[in-house]
Amino acid sequence: MTIAEAALLDLCAAVFRAAGAGAAEAGDAAAILVAAEGMGIGTHGVARVETYAQRMREGWINPAPQILEDAAAPALRRVDGDNALGPAAAMRGLRAAMAAARDCGVGAAFVRRSNHFGAVAPYALIAAEAGFASIAMSNSAPTLAPAGGTEARVGNSPLGFGFPGPGGAHVLVDVAMSMVARSHIRDAARRGAPIPEGWAVDARGAPVTDAVLAMKSLLAPIGGHKGYALALAVDMLAGVLSGAGFLTRVPDVNGGAEGVSDLGHAFVLIDVVRLMPEAMRDDRMTEAAALLRATPAADPARQVRTPGERALKSLARARAEGFDVSADLLARLRTLAG
Amino acid sequence: MTIAEAALLDLCAAVFRAAGAGAAEAGDAAAILVAAEGMGIGTHGVARVETYAQRMREGWINPAPQILEDAAAPALRRVDGDNALGPAAAMRGLRAAMAAARDCGVGAAFVRRSNHFGAVAPYALIAAEAGFASIAMSNSAPTLAPAGGTEARVGNSPLGFGFPGPGGAHVLVDVAMSMVARSHIRDAARRGAPIPEGWAVDARGAPVTDAVLAMKSLLAPIGGHKGYALALAVDMLAGVLSGAGFLTRVPDVNGGAEGVSDLGHAFVLIDVVRLMPEAMRDDRMTEAAALLRATPAADPARQVRTPGERALKSLARARAEGFDVSADLLARLRTLAG
Repeated sequence: MTIAEAALLDLCAAVFRAAGAGAAEAGDAAAILVAAEGMGIGTHGVARVETYAQRMREGWINPAPQILEDAAAPALRRVDGDNALGPAAAMRGLRAAMAAARDCGVGAAFVRRSNHFGAVAPYALIAAEAGFASIAMSNSAPTLAPAGGTEARVGNSPLGFGFPGPGGAHVLVDVAMSMVARSHIRDAARRGAPIPEGWAVDARGAPVTDAVLAMKSLLAPIGGHKGYALALAVDMLAGVLSGAGFLTRVPDVNGGAEGVSDLGHAFVLIDVVRLMPEAMRDDRMTEAAALLRATPAADPARQVRTPGERALKSLARARAEGFDVSADLLARLRTLAG
Repeated sequence: MTIAEAALLDLCAAVFRAAGAGAAEAGDAAAILVAAEGMGIGTHGVARVETYAQRMREGWINPAPQILEDAAAPALRRVDGDNALGPAAAMRGLRAAMAAARDCGVGAAFVRRSNHFGAVAPYALIAAEAGFASIAMSNSAPTLAPAGGTEARVGNSPLGFGFPGPGGAHVLVDVAMSMVARSHIRDAARRGAPIPEGWAVDARGAPVTDAVLAMKSLLAPIGGHKGYALALAVDMLAGVLSGAGFLTRVPDVNGGAEGVSDLGHAFVLIDVVRLMPEAMRDDRMTEAAALLRATPAADPARQVRTPGERALKSLARARAEGFDVSADLLARLRTLAG
């Protein structure tokens, strides 16, 4: 089924409002999940509307939060999400950090008492569209073991970067520190399919290829101890420094656990025009993209892309031609919207 | 041979001064390389004193730079290194970013026209000792291919994070985005030893185990496209946004090429005490470290460590008992110091 962006945004927001959310929170959450859907990040797209709304109905997400924001210093903002929908609390942080960066050249926001905020890429895109380079991240429930350890202690937390380019040719990086996202293992488990070696490891570090077992195993971090260290750095910023939960203090609500998440997010924004004139920035971004695309390709039919290029093309197409969403999911969302 | 820290610092600085450097630049460069040596980062330790000084004598590094710094905005600093010794330009950036963060809660510095700045960890340590959380990075000459490409276009650029802990128990992350540093391949090539599969790949992505061939091959990034994307993000910040060279505009001077490097660095500093009282920070850092160390260990004899823990212990031991430096290297440095 194809649905226009405006209609999909309205539908998603209506589901959140039907679950008790106010218009502002519902709109932020819908915007982030629809953007991810358009970017082709199906694991963090509108299917999450159902799960977020369900957690709200169950009382684990606050439908009427008093999100508090304070300026800890001229360029530094703290946001207490009051257990709001993750994208609603996160967008308060992102907007605060952009305002601080407009004033001070660089701005940072640390968000606590939040929930799953979706994918990083939509935040990096919003920042890039406003002319900001960004570093954005969230912590998450533990799925990675520390190097040399046999139990999950660190979340497979997403780290993103965005860089504004001319005419919407932004560079967007959105990576978590496991070889693959756990949602791919969950999908394989639902289908009854095995997973390749390298995705998950057991307590002794041996590969796990049974997807159902892998859901209870450890995700393999990229580069072993390097991926662990990077994932920990994300949790130190988004969790420890934000005042949110961190490490094993973050319950695994994706795994069906009850309780309040207390996730944290961190945003660092840089107002690029303060570093160089826009024309110079555009020249350098264009040259960087050209150097990457001119790399001889392993498959001559597939030109080398810049990070985010495929997602941005996918989003532009969805905005022009409509979003492909399964009829089943649309029907369920319409029922939930009441 | 064991040498006291003060004597080693004096010796290294004397080598730089003998090559024409002023006292301030020589002192900064000595401090960074000696700290890395003490932290056990031998590839970026005092052996680099020789190579940095040689490049200065050959005219590729400016012995008498006019390092310029300007405040692009209240929290944002730009540094023009004037082709100084990398650690000298980088330390100007780090100090400027710390001052901006003291004023504004968060501060950033972008450094251009610099040179190889050593390891990231010493900068993260200096920041942590002053109470700052940090994100620090440098770009470097291309050794990684973009995902789907067959030629090196992106540097294996280091990305670091530092978090101040109580009583010097800082968390320090210092990773580059290849499976291993190229210096390990260079060492194997010098010894005539092969390298394991997974370190280097040829243009078709096949493993290279001959170390001499591997020096002309591509480094394998951690997590494939993820490592590429992270390495590119570092070059976008440290290279494109700083005004320095980037991607293939950075010549491979480590490989013996002539010419000026025009490397760039980026620092983001966060004044943690503005986010929470020191006692709360200490409690959270202590709890995070305890949660990690309590992870059941794969080898019961080897407790799980926090990132940077081994390096900090090594440095403390070196400072107390002296630095182990080979007699050959010490003799060469004494000759160079004149």
